[in-house]
Amino acid sequence: MSQLTLQNPVFVAYVIAASIMILKAASMSWLTVVQMIRFKGGYRSPEDLKKTPLNPAPHPEQLGPNEPVDRSRRIHMNDLENIPFFLAAGLLFVVTDPSLPLAQWLLYGYVVTRLLHFLAYLSAQIHEIRAALWTPGSLIILFMASRALMVAVSH
Amino acid sequence: MSQLTLQNPVFVAYVIAASIMILKAASMSWLTVVQMIRFKGGYRSPEDLKKTPLNPAPHPEQLGPNEPVDRSRRIHMNDLENIPFFLAAGLLFVVTDPSLPLAQWLLYGYVVTRLLHFLAYLSAQIHEIRAALWTPGSLIILFMASRALMVAVSH
Amino acid sequence: MSQLTLQNPVFVAYVIAASIMILKAASMSWLTVVQMIRFKGGYRSPEDLKKTPLNPAPHPEQLGPNEPVDRSRRIHMNDLENIPFFLAAGLLFVVTDPSLPLAQWLLYGYVVTRLLHFLAYLSAQIHEIRAALWTPGSLIILFMASRALMVAVSH
Repeated sequence: MSQLTLQNPVFVAYVIAASIMILKAASMSWLTVVQMIRFKGGYRSPEDLKKTPLNPAPHPEQLGPNEPVDRSRRIHMNDLENIPFFLAAGLLFVVTDPSLPLAQWLLYGYVVTRLLHFLAYLSAQIHEIRAALWTPGSLIILFMASRALMVAVSH
Repeated sequence: MSQLTLQNPVFVAYVIAASIMILKAASMSWLTVVQMIRFKGGYRSPEDLKKTPLNPAPHPEQLGPNEPVDRSRRIHMNDLENIPFFLAAGLLFVVTDPSLPLAQWLLYGYVVTRLLHFLAYLSAQIHEIRAALWTPGSLIILFMASRALMVAVSH
Repeated sequence: MSQLTLQNPVFVAYVIAASIMILKAASMSWLTVVQMIRFKGGYRSPEDLKKTPLNPAPHPEQLGPNEPVDRSRRIHMNDLENIPFFLAAGLLFVVTDPSLPLAQWLLYGYVVTRLLHFLAYLSAQIHEIRAALWTPGSLIILFMASRALMVAVSH
């Protein structure tokens, strides 16, 4: 019997957590776009200095560092380092048939701490706060993957 | 009943779209390699300046910016920001049991616009063209993840 | 019948390989953290220069290049370029119902070469050694995705 169906409440919890995290990560591109439009900079390609309707007065500094855009990119990068592995570890974890409360704590706990981490990073909180909000998510990924490994090895 | 089998034509469409996108993203590393060999630069690690059979005449500029190699890396980075989330959102979308035509439009539409986006980026088209070819794919990811979220929440 | 259950020994092999690779990639963040603490640098955000209990004597060079931290980030980046696509291609490959020995060779071969690649990159081996250990994994991803594509297209 497959655990990967919506008849399995643990998989339903996974789909909810995973889809929120996908929406979060995919939205980061749009935040970067918004910041590039607001600050007219933080571009990356030489062709972005061509005169176009959206960039009527190009100048070379537009390719240089731009803190608001770079911040959005750093947050995005942090998502790329974490969320794909959450998505994969969560799926493997569902297959190990965990109890529903454990699954909900881990999956929803991941979502909540990642969203708080985003707010802390966006508002430039000190590193200690960012780290405290990043750590639970990383431990959840490591725990889910370790459990999947142990269950599979002993199968 | 699991939707994640090749007896389900929606899943077949997903496997086709997903495998093409994996081939595309994994090929970007090879494009970067080709450009590094052609332009003998765009390297990243100090040890890449050691004299070896493949780099018989090393010089420090090989670690500096190199537009053809950097362009390949930027396209690759754009893939990393998008394709893993397409792969995950598409899988969750299949589980929501969409109609086959809707699934084919979204999954194959994603593939087509991503391949066109690649050609536009590689040939250094202006940002407006790149953006126009990136946007449909991003909206498809957001739509598929939103639908998965709504279906799971109402389950 | 779903192939994605632990009753399928090919899927068991996938879960073992995938969970090891997730643990590997997720551990890279911790290696970067360890290097940042050891070398008190390689930071990225302006707010990381604020005086805090973990950074009692901040100075601007902490935001500049820092080879040990940057090396950890480069290895991590290489993981992001490869492992998510291994995770996805491996899952699609399982669905094509390969023989168990073929699946074990490809899945465990990927894990072994990626771990050796990590050791080569961490110890700054020349590019030729790094490339020789990266190439098998990339070819395994391309092979698994190609097989999934061919099986799905002919379905």
